[in-house]
Amino acid sequence: MHGHHTIDGERSALGASTFAARAASTGAELPGRFHDATPGEVAAAAAAAQRAARVLRRTPWPDLARFLRAIADELDARGEDIVARADLESGLGAPRLTGELGRTTDQLRLFADEGDGGGWLGLRVDASRGADLRRVALPIGPVAVFGASNFPLAFSVAGGDTAAAWAAGCPVVVKAHPAHPGTSELVADAIVDVLARSPLPAATFQMLHGADHAVGGALVQAPEVRAVAFTGSFAGGTALDRLARARPRPIPVFAEMGSSNPIVVLPGALAARGDQVAAQVAGSITLGAGQFCTKPGVIVGLAGAAFDAFVSEVARALEGVAPATMLTDGIRTAYRAGVAELAATAAVDVVWLGDGDERPVGPSLLRTTAAAVIERPSLLDEVFGPAALVVACADAAEALALAEALPGSLTATLHLEDADLDLAADLSEVLVERVGRLIVNGVPTGVIVSPAQHHGGPYPATLDARATSVGTAAVERFLRPVAFQDVPEALLPAPLRGTADSDR
Amino acid sequence: MHGHHTIDGERSALGASTFAARAASTGAELPGRFHDATPGEVAAAAAAAQRAARVLRRTPWPDLARFLRAIADELDARGEDIVARADLESGLGAPRLTGELGRTTDQLRLFADEGDGGGWLGLRVDASRGADLRRVALPIGPVAVFGASNFPLAFSVAGGDTAAAWAAGCPVVVKAHPAHPGTSELVADAIVDVLARSPLPAATFQMLHGADHAVGGALVQAPEVRAVAFTGSFAGGTALDRLARARPRPIPVFAEMGSSNPIVVLPGALAARGDQVAAQVAGSITLGAGQFCTKPGVIVGLAGAAFDAFVSEVARALEGVAPATMLTDGIRTAYRAGVAELAATAAVDVVWLGDGDERPVGPSLLRTTAAAVIERPSLLDEVFGPAALVVACADAAEALALAEALPGSLTATLHLEDADLDLAADLSEVLVERVGRLIVNGVPTGVIVSPAQHHGGPYPATLDARATSVGTAAVERFLRPVAFQDVPEALLPAPLRGTADSDR
Repeated sequence: MHGHHTIDGERSALGASTFAARAASTGAELPGRFHDATPGEVAAAAAAAQRAARVLRRTPWPDLARFLRAIADELDARGEDIVARADLESGLGAPRLTGELGRTTDQLRLFADEGDGGGWLGLRVDASRGADLRRVALPIGPVAVFGASNFPLAFSVAGGDTAAAWAAGCPVVVKAHPAHPGTSELVADAIVDVLARSPLPAATFQMLHGADHAVGGALVQAPEVRAVAFTGSFAGGTALDRLARARPRPIPVFAEMGSSNPIVVLPGALAARGDQVAAQVAGSITLGAGQFCTKPGVIVGLAGAAFDAFVSEVARALEGVAPATMLTDGIRTAYRAGVAELAATAAVDVVWLGDGDERPVGPSLLRTTAAAVIERPSLLDEVFGPAALVVACADAAEALALAEALPGSLTATLHLEDADLDLAADLSEVLVERVGRLIVNGVPTGVIVSPAQHHGGPYPATLDARATSVGTAAVERFLRPVAFQDVPEALLPAPLRGTADSDR
Repeated sequence: MHGHHTIDGERSALGASTFAARAASTGAELPGRFHDATPGEVAAAAAAAQRAARVLRRTPWPDLARFLRAIADELDARGEDIVARADLESGLGAPRLTGELGRTTDQLRLFADEGDGGGWLGLRVDASRGADLRRVALPIGPVAVFGASNFPLAFSVAGGDTAAAWAAGCPVVVKAHPAHPGTSELVADAIVDVLARSPLPAATFQMLHGADHAVGGALVQAPEVRAVAFTGSFAGGTALDRLARARPRPIPVFAEMGSSNPIVVLPGALAARGDQVAAQVAGSITLGAGQFCTKPGVIVGLAGAAFDAFVSEVARALEGVAPATMLTDGIRTAYRAGVAELAATAAVDVVWLGDGDERPVGPSLLRTTAAAVIERPSLLDEVFGPAALVVACADAAEALALAEALPGSLTATLHLEDADLDLAADLSEVLVERVGRLIVNGVPTGVIVSPAQHHGGPYPATLDARATSVGTAAVERFLRPVAFQDVPEALLPAPLRGTADSDR
């Protein structure tokens, strides 16, 4: 571990202050000291990114696609080392991390495959109204990417945001997450090696370390940066957004900030396969120690014996789940505080607390009523980790009223049988206004990377409900349309050359 | 003139305070007293809009398209009365307003024509990755539209923002501009009559009057409102944005706030047709008394005898332009203050001041150097009205440095001949990062309504550089993608029914 930043193709470590990575499972320091980037290093990276942006804007798509595929191949080749370090830093386990690496490299290749068609450039040509008008989406410019702690590969250095920005033709400056700086370094070094043998400018990719929020803050405020992609907490996303809006020239922050992901289990589904749904739900709550932005945090049903039996079955399934390592001490502390606050609330009952005060955490299931939630919507605030709140509704009308009270969320899930379709139709009309993805008879965790995916949703799940951070539509965040009126061929950007009205 | 608001299909006038329209040419009061909407009326309109939003989301496209065409036909039929009142209120003249009405109704029909194909819904279906995923853009919900004073028809009650929101399937609440409340009432009454014989809900269109900023402020803060469309001043747009971001659930404000629209006249074009370009430029500066967001406010060239001759020719053409009526007293006062401030600046010379202290205003031409602008970019701040600032650059390098210092703008224009192509290529690389539209050998005024148009640009020209407020792509502002995972046919929104992977 060299612990250096990557700036314009060179290693840099001008700052005196350093930090270490810690093993998630023990808290012990891991090899390597990582430097906090200085303001001068942030400025140098931003300036180099702006120079690279102009080169990338003229780079033919086949070169970009080759670059995306080469990164994927290089990461696959170095997979064993990367997964080993990621496991130490995150405690997520080699099987999950091996899967996550595959998702990361598949994602890079998916962008490479889909981009060739140019669909996301939104080419429109019209010479029929008195002038030759050609509209195309151009790269927005340098993008600052903030890695997420819970996906040290797929939402980090070479993750979805970076892949989308590259596919748009934008240089990326990654602010490495301090919970996995070693993993970040291994991935960054792979990218640097690929860039060294590519025609793309070195500053197509740069990375800065920093345990201090000041590094990320300086990056968001650098004048050359044109957009920010962030996956993490509500507090983190909104803090970056405030900085971005206070700039002389404000820029968009595409922040995916987590969500309550309600699952509604309707009576027909309860009757037909309640136990099976309970097992599915318990598995989704505890997958990866509940450290997913799509973890179902709210389980809704109509009060009665069938729903009580279902809740007992969920609790029984949670009893069988072994305590698990969380990503960081901070996340563990916040999980326990969130569960304790809910448990101490008068309107909330504890169904199952599998958690002690050991380092690994156990799952938690709590229960309240729709009336209590409608009176106090903050009960639905996300508790990051393996916890869920059961919400019992007196009847269908109260379930609809609860749906109206739900905050914006990445997902909502309905479990239903044919007999439930009428209530499901009414509920889905309300839910669809509040979510980015509606799921039937499944679980929200396990977000498929696909051109048809939408991983986003209304505030507070994200800061821009039109944006997705998973799937190839994620590239649209980093493109900006420009119209060219009577511009001669020689001055047109590459995708518009040779176009004519008949191509529309 | 009844002076009432239109709320959920009924006229309403609960407030005690009223205001009158004034004739732009004389300042005299015109017939009609218009009520300021009360907070209760704003709330009632927002609630009705939310109810209508759910109905509109299920409305088949052919019904929406028929509605758009029926509005266009009705406005054409009532054109004479509408144009007469608009001329009294705006002073823009019957010929211009007749043209603007045609543009307004053509625009409604263009949305109706393009929507049938559903291209803007961005349909994506993928059943190849372990689940049936279908992604479609749904209407975002109730949209608040703020009319612009300078386009009493095309950017007002039934203007581009309203047409785009309707085409997306969103109900609209218009805040009528107090500079043309009578025109707004005539257009609103036409829409109400069309709605009365349409299957669409009455609250598909509502309109509130208010001379006080409080009415618009309350509308932006109404919880049911999901997006705001605004055309007007920087101060107005950013004030609404602050309110929208301070909501418990922030919403986007799509604000088009004007711009400096630089025109660069390159040496070859100067030599080949300087006089012709000068006439074109002078015409564009003074068209509609310079009251266009695309008025060229900055004229750039390389210092020297040819450029001096060109500037003299622009001044000579301006001398021939008769003083013209401005839209409001406030706009006239601001124009004179802006010109006076520039004229009083040490680094700025007056080339031509055709303005006196009469009610109609004359054009103004001022001149400075690129060095002065680079030192003090606020010299480029928009002066709304028939004024432009000439900026002389010492050489090509300084022209490039000036381009780097330009703020975000709706447009930039290059006048060039073949001999200019090298410098033009360098300049356009820089300009394209700062504008929404690049024009060659034309003028920025006269924005073509087209699927290939982009009327937007980086801050401070707009608040979202990805959005356009002219052309059919304007509809994308009011759509939000949602993914449906394994959702049965009966619960899918209409555009996704009957889709299958093969349709992709």
